[in-house]
Amino acid sequence: MYIILSLATKMKMLGIDPGFRIAGYSIIECTGNRLSIVDVGVFKMAQGLSIPVRLQLFYDFFNDTIQTHSITALTLETSFMGKNAQNFLKLGYLRGALYLLSQKHSLALHEYAPREIKQIVTGFGGAEKEQVARVLQMLFPKVSLDGLPLDATDALAIALCGVWKML
Amino acid sequence: MYIILSLATKMKMLGIDPGFRIAGYSIIECTGNRLSIVDVGVFKMAQGLSIPVRLQLFYDFFNDTIQTHSITALTLETSFMGKNAQNFLKLGYLRGALYLLSQKHSLALHEYAPREIKQIVTGFGGAEKEQVARVLQMLFPKVSLDGLPLDATDALAIALCGVWKML
Repeated sequence: MYIILSLATKMKMLGIDPGFRIAGYSIIECTGNRLSIVDVGVFKMAQGLSIPVRLQLFYDFFNDTIQTHSITALTLETSFMGKNAQNFLKLGYLRGALYLLSQKHSLALHEYAPREIKQIVTGFGGAEKEQVARVLQMLFPKVSLDGLPLDATDALAIALCGVWKML
Repeated sequence: MYIILSLATKMKMLGIDPGFRIAGYSIIECTGNRLSIVDVGVFKMAQGLSIPVRLQLFYDFFNDTIQTHSITALTLETSFMGKNAQNFLKLGYLRGALYLLSQKHSLALHEYAPREIKQIVTGFGGAEKEQVARVLQMLFPKVSLDGLPLDATDALAIALCGVWKML
């Protein structure tokens, strides 16, 4: 006689689209093949605060989020330099904070290029942010994504790509 | 009758020249107007390790250094993008870790452009690293800087500039 155990491992993926003014984030829970959105939103920081203070707030917010939700994995977009080199450097501060958090909490860390994330989520690597949001709404009809900032739906696409790549 | 109190406040300045292979650092103690080198050297990381692991090692090393030596202030160079954008982004990870440490330990944080540091230490903003090292040796004749990597003497110049700017 054989006893077959269903090892439905639980994964809690945090997807983050970092920024010093507004950071999008989302948490997707995956039990077996069942996916559900645990949280999706944005973390905002006042522009009057210094960069070190905002970095600390960003670190503390995600440190709490990871602990509160027992996050097991983290997905980020790889970053490419835009027009402003100093903004690119500052993005490095935020990514550095997330790398430290991935080490502190022993999270699996995944990174995908923006084009790859759009390709996987919408089937088209050149999709606009609004198209990505529409596809996500179709994939998760029970959760209303209406009115969410695009930073939040971007983060949801990032987390979903991270989950699908792991399944 | 007046009693004059000599308020010889003690400052312990940490200067850091961050890098993922080798990071230069130095500690200068300043009691009243008397300056002394407490430590100057480099922290090396094995290239085989991943970036998040090296970032954690870098963070832990300087967290320990700040605690062990009761550091009160931190000076860094401002950074400008060189030829490699990805190296510039990675430098952002290290600087982000140092910003977080400055917040955690309530350190005064100072940043000066490389040219300004050389100008202040040697009198010439375009000085070579070797010239900077020679001037530092003349300023601190009791400590042998011979054979130290230039990352270490760079960090000493950074700390010294930070101290002089505060006096």
